[in-house]
Amino acid sequence: MPLYLAVDAGGTSTRCVAVTEAGECVGYGRAASGNPVSAGPTLAAESVARAAETALAQAGVRGGDIRGGDIRGVLLAMAGASTLTSAEPFTPGLAALGITAPLGFAGDLLALFASGTWEPQGYALVAGTGAAAVRVEDGAIAQTADGLGWLIGDDGSGYWLGERVVRAASAHLDGRGPGTSLTAALLTELGLRDDHTVHNGRPAVLDRMVESLYALRPVELSRFARLAFEAADADAVAAGIVDDAADALINTLSAVVTRRVAGPIVLGGGTVAAHTGLPGRIARTNPGCPVATVADGAVGATVLVLRDAGVTVDEGVFTRVGRSLAALR
Amino acid sequence: MPLYLAVDAGGTSTRCVAVTEAGECVGYGRAASGNPVSAGPTLAAESVARAAETALAQAGVRGGDIRGGDIRGVLLAMAGASTLTSAEPFTPGLAALGITAPLGFAGDLLALFASGTWEPQGYALVAGTGAAAVRVEDGAIAQTADGLGWLIGDDGSGYWLGERVVRAASAHLDGRGPGTSLTAALLTELGLRDDHTVHNGRPAVLDRMVESLYALRPVELSRFARLAFEAADADAVAAGIVDDAADALINTLSAVVTRRVAGPIVLGGGTVAAHTGLPGRIARTNPGCPVATVADGAVGATVLVLRDAGVTVDEGVFTRVGRSLAALR
Repeated sequence: MPLYLAVDAGGTSTRCVAVTEAGECVGYGRAASGNPVSAGPTLAAESVARAAETALAQAGVRGGDIRGGDIRGVLLAMAGASTLTSAEPFTPGLAALGITAPLGFAGDLLALFASGTWEPQGYALVAGTGAAAVRVEDGAIAQTADGLGWLIGDDGSGYWLGERVVRAASAHLDGRGPGTSLTAALLTELGLRDDHTVHNGRPAVLDRMVESLYALRPVELSRFARLAFEAADADAVAAGIVDDAADALINTLSAVVTRRVAGPIVLGGGTVAAHTGLPGRIARTNPGCPVATVADGAVGATVLVLRDAGVTVDEGVFTRVGRSLAALR
Repeated sequence: MPLYLAVDAGGTSTRCVAVTEAGECVGYGRAASGNPVSAGPTLAAESVARAAETALAQAGVRGGDIRGGDIRGVLLAMAGASTLTSAEPFTPGLAALGITAPLGFAGDLLALFASGTWEPQGYALVAGTGAAAVRVEDGAIAQTADGLGWLIGDDGSGYWLGERVVRAASAHLDGRGPGTSLTAALLTELGLRDDHTVHNGRPAVLDRMVESLYALRPVELSRFARLAFEAADADAVAAGIVDDAADALINTLSAVVTRRVAGPIVLGGGTVAAHTGLPGRIARTNPGCPVATVADGAVGATVLVLRDAGVTVDEGVFTRVGRSLAALR
């Protein structure tokens, strides 16, 4: 039975789906990060191979059992795929499993979009550690907004929220900003205790906080985004940060929305999921564009590998992919 | 003639002043960065020794000519002095010049304050690459606001401005923000040309800009602050960035200002100097507090080394230090 492999390689985990030409998912595997930028090429290739091995095992195909031609195509969906189109790091690990089919690449945003709809046009907004929006036309990216990384972009992302949490706590501690429960929450998160001593004209705990935070890689500030969502109901500063982040995400989406293109708006990523009011707000401001929220790009990567193979993915095939994959997870 | 050495060790350059007990500056030397955090301990110690050597030469004291006791005291003013109180890296280089006097440390903000006034209380606001404000009482730091570095603080600083310039240009290029002349200015600064091709649904030049910017150390974004000041007269986005930075600096200063303490407000640093309207605005909102702008902390470090030696620095001595140092520079 000819199979296709779809790999959704994220910054924290990799998902691989083995699918038939008819859109029946018959194997699913997970592994660690498969993105060469976040995990390095060696670990990324290892993760992709492990996820593929697990998916094939579930599909009843053991390593070594693969006859030439059984795996007809492999697609890797990942961030940065447009610049990182080299199969080189991934080929040996897949070849060791007997997989010699051509390796295609797709962007993570296109895979996310295709996880939410079979339609060839519409929009995707994704926010996890980073944040970006795209407009899709004829099944391809027509416009991209943001996704420029923590230093100069990613407005409304997990990093963006985490940085604001840290800045709000710092400003509270040295008197530049209002009091906020985020300060105590952040100190707890960092394992610090305010002993109310003063050093150099400010709370001594602030020096220790600064030291802890500069010891992190900047992008790790995204882990403090959670504190803003947790405190937003009872704390005005936290609520302001969450509201500003939602505004920023909506602004990023608006940059790619055009009246000319009506289609579903697919939302994804942990930071989007934490904004409970966001899907409703986006639906209200974009009438005629149904809003769908997806967990990841696994369904979409599967859709894309089938399309690359010449399969027409209509509503029926899309539903079959989604249902059969859900049954495996 | 007994002499004292005052060293103002900044992140880009080091200034050393040789001064008599009467407050007559008789030697001045400059060298590269003397701050162990920005230059590393070896280079920092070398810079301090070079600046001291030059100052002593101008004072008519050559290396080897120094009799024990001629140099009665040395003070190093630098950022982070409160945590970095070890004389260790600096002792050998100074000893090689025959300087064995005790080495004292002071914060750069206190030195900056003392460059603008002989009074024992008041305020200082400094903004260069970073930004901070202090309240001084009884000649010592009573309260500090900000100065927490590019990642979590330094509101209104050169870094803060530069980051906003870069974000405004990025948002312009991918349609999230309004058009601004900052974009063309930034591309020129980075040596990039917009060839108006599109890649992955956005201007191809944006990808190259992202690559250039992530190749910098984050703090180097401060070099783009200048672009905001240059464009502010004719560009609304740039004007908004400059206004927001001024507001942020005033907020930082306000955090340390108390009615209980009236005294001069001393301003310093390249970013403060670029805000032409800032001294007037600060003067208007703080009646009773004269506003003085200083170039650096050299006069103040000189005042501090004299005070450490038991000299009473009143208006007369302060004026003598300032005039005699100005004649040497």
